[in-house]
Amino acid sequence: MKPKNFLFVHGAWHSAAHWNGVVERLVGMGHGAFAIDLPGSGLNATYPQSYLRNDFDAFANEPSPVGGIHLADYVDAITAQLTNMARHGKVTLVGHSFGGLAITAAAEATPDLIDRLVYLTAYVPVPDLPNAAALASLPEGQSSISGAILIGDPRVTGAQRINPRNADPDYVEKGRQALYNDVSTEEYLRFVSYCNPDLPLAVAFDNAQGTAERWGRIPRTFVRCTKDHTIPLLLQDRMISEADAASPNNKFQIDTLPSSHSSFASMPDRLAEVLSGN
Amino acid sequence: MKPKNFLFVHGAWHSAAHWNGVVERLVGMGHGAFAIDLPGSGLNATYPQSYLRNDFDAFANEPSPVGGIHLADYVDAITAQLTNMARHGKVTLVGHSFGGLAITAAAEATPDLIDRLVYLTAYVPVPDLPNAAALASLPEGQSSISGAILIGDPRVTGAQRINPRNADPDYVEKGRQALYNDVSTEEYLRFVSYCNPDLPLAVAFDNAQGTAERWGRIPRTFVRCTKDHTIPLLLQDRMISEADAASPNNKFQIDTLPSSHSSFASMPDRLAEVLSGN
Repeated sequence: MKPKNFLFVHGAWHSAAHWNGVVERLVGMGHGAFAIDLPGSGLNATYPQSYLRNDFDAFANEPSPVGGIHLADYVDAITAQLTNMARHGKVTLVGHSFGGLAITAAAEATPDLIDRLVYLTAYVPVPDLPNAAALASLPEGQSSISGAILIGDPRVTGAQRINPRNADPDYVEKGRQALYNDVSTEEYLRFVSYCNPDLPLAVAFDNAQGTAERWGRIPRTFVRCTKDHTIPLLLQDRMISEADAASPNNKFQIDTLPSSHSSFASMPDRLAEVLSGN
Repeated sequence: MKPKNFLFVHGAWHSAAHWNGVVERLVGMGHGAFAIDLPGSGLNATYPQSYLRNDFDAFANEPSPVGGIHLADYVDAITAQLTNMARHGKVTLVGHSFGGLAITAAAEATPDLIDRLVYLTAYVPVPDLPNAAALASLPEGQSSISGAILIGDPRVTGAQRINPRNADPDYVEKGRQALYNDVSTEEYLRFVSYCNPDLPLAVAFDNAQGTAERWGRIPRTFVRCTKDHTIPLLLQDRMISEADAASPNNKFQIDTLPSSHSSFASMPDRLAEVLSGN
């Protein structure tokens, strides 16, 4: 096996930490692997004061301290790390969920540093559907249930906001059903405890499209997750079709996992095997 | 530069996530690097119910769900990952603070998998001073101020417990002074938001000693941190002397950083340079 050089990009509300089980397995196989904290996420997160005080009434509408972040900031962070890592070998760039926007825009910016793009049940923005707002509005996405965990008014907060510290059983169960429906509540609480509350609102509307000439010539894989209740399988398949139509000379390689939105939590062994074998 | 193969082990209340800035830099330099979540920590943490509910009165004395964890569990997790990683090259095993106990015990168990041990202002247990309790009781450790953030009765909780979710400015400042006195409060809040509340009590009393015959023959480095208010510099130097007396034919190589207890937060560039150059 030829060792690969993985760079992982998390999705909304998530962080580098959530990849750790998968990175552990890939490193154990002899690959290089690193997960980045995007700006405003993970160790780069800044929190609303009301959230830090556990004052959840005020938290619902306090403006987000990360509301000014744009997709271009994500791209800058990814391309900086891609540039460093690619000096030692081209990179397999993996994006989960919302991270699909960021890896597409980063690939458009620096296609020559990337060996392969892997979309793990992730958004694939193309010229006709250039951002998350457009993709999530497709009819194939309407069965998504992740909207049930959003709180506050995004026009006030500047963010798509969740409350990872809300332990109300109904709220916890809504989050588990949307994001982690194939792990136990105890396991879900481990993962959600490492989530951040705010996804900057602008990131869903910024243009993230890949073009056939740059993004479209990089080999790419889509890992379909059949039990996903956040990006439904129908929407995953629609995005695969749209992307293949946008770059007809270089189509997706397809893998499928029988998992929820969060296979890094529910089946890290199988996910690592898929990634290693690609 | 010959690439190294780093495995990072966090200290009390910390997790793999806290190493991410250093791992990012080392991977960018062409090294392999991975940080593990010890049992009961990071994505492996289980939380007291009262903590999840933000009921801090009850939290002070709820028994810890990770109170049954022993040093042997830490060693099992580290040696499993060492075994996987060492198939692709011997490992530089780095421990911070409490993680010094775990890397010493793991080195004693599997010395042949390890290229070098690096103690980043970390405990170094030797036959005369075989655990954290003995080392922290030395006169050179008495200026430590980290005890000010402990809450509850460890005989009831089974843990050395802190409250990473307590945003009271006095409590936050005590934590910053003890652990991160060279970063801003905002930066400290980023790091402490990823801390866990409970260090299993037994781990401080379990025998972690290295012997000259096994641990003592592995090359080792101590990274002294001169502004550390948790493991004072005097105690760091005492532990270096004790370890060198315990294995006189293989003494510490010494590096020094002008940092607090948490150089991975305050000076990740310099820490990565030191680790890469060892």
